[in-house]
Amino acid sequence: MISDELKTLIHLLSKLPGLGPRSGKRVALHLLQNRTTTLSALAESLQIVKVKVKECTVCGNLDSQDPCFLCQDPRRDTSFICVVESVADLWALERTASFKGHYHVLGGVLSALDGVGPEDLRLTSLLHRCQRGGVHEIILALNATVEGQTTSHYITERLREVGITHISSLARGVPVGGELDYLDEGTLSAALLSRRGV
Amino acid sequence: MISDELKTLIHLLSKLPGLGPRSGKRVALHLLQNRTTTLSALAESLQIVKVKVKECTVCGNLDSQDPCFLCQDPRRDTSFICVVESVADLWALERTASFKGHYHVLGGVLSALDGVGPEDLRLTSLLHRCQRGGVHEIILALNATVEGQTTSHYITERLREVGITHISSLARGVPVGGELDYLDEGTLSAALLSRRGV
Repeated sequence: MISDELKTLIHLLSKLPGLGPRSGKRVALHLLQNRTTTLSALAESLQIVKVKVKECTVCGNLDSQDPCFLCQDPRRDTSFICVVESVADLWALERTASFKGHYHVLGGVLSALDGVGPEDLRLTSLLHRCQRGGVHEIILALNATVEGQTTSHYITERLREVGITHISSLARGVPVGGELDYLDEGTLSAALLSRRGV
Repeated sequence: MISDELKTLIHLLSKLPGLGPRSGKRVALHLLQNRTTTLSALAESLQIVKVKVKECTVCGNLDSQDPCFLCQDPRRDTSFICVVESVADLWALERTASFKGHYHVLGGVLSALDGVGPEDLRLTSLLHRCQRGGVHEIILALNATVEGQTTSHYITERLREVGITHISSLARGVPVGGELDYLDEGTLSAALLSRRGV
């Protein structure tokens, strides 16, 4: 009873992360009720992003330039490469404004369950970057999940093969504002093991 | 630090109902990670919907035909018009498959707070439809909210002026599967007042 064009739109919207069939319908109606301010603007914006925003061939970041603005920035230290799973993680780290090196976006983590192998990750180009020389330290900033840690171990071995010795990972401990009573045992024991002198 | 094109897209996405700044980012990255299946498809679909799907000039429904398929359906009874606030409500009623008359979408309800007056609603065309004759009954299927009920009262008066005498509204009562203990007093007393012989 809904026209085919609208059905297609609702279907596509309902497949987006965080949306479902009901919210997909709501978004579609919202778009049609705000044709110029939202529908046209969004259609145009998607078209522009589709054409202009590409993956950086060096690090995998998303930008309208290639190499991306981060790779082109002369103020950033090329001897530090921070390896992240996704562009979202890169953005999260950039928000902290506490890292002034370069990034490398893997585009995923190893997962036997999802059939993701080393060849599915942006790994060869990371090794190439290291082999070109000038890399002092690789920081593995992958999620503290089983897949993230498996991937970290695998990458560490591959990096050692190409002669990288300085490899680090993010510190484990009590999050800022965290209450001990609510923390899991793994985090607490990691925080205890890595305790620091005051 | 995010390119302007991507910023615009994230901003537009985060203004959609049910989405916010964080989920807007997540959706944008999801779109860029699935270029052909999602980004291109959504951009194309929005373009098609923008061009093809219009408001029906008779009833206000959204369709690729004008008059819409509901207004054109010869099996539907033109002597019954069901007045709804939005296309979403029309869809909700159509899902029940228990109404075989025509619809009229107001496009909102009267609201002094939001500055919505009678001239902002699709009201004149409703009165015109009634004046053309052949209308036996108007069913006011507006939300059971203060605004919905105010609008119902206002429309009732206007309909009486153009000679419509059969005006009804949706029944109030215990929802199917509803437990009395959890119902508000208003609904319960309405259900009691409208009690039916068994």
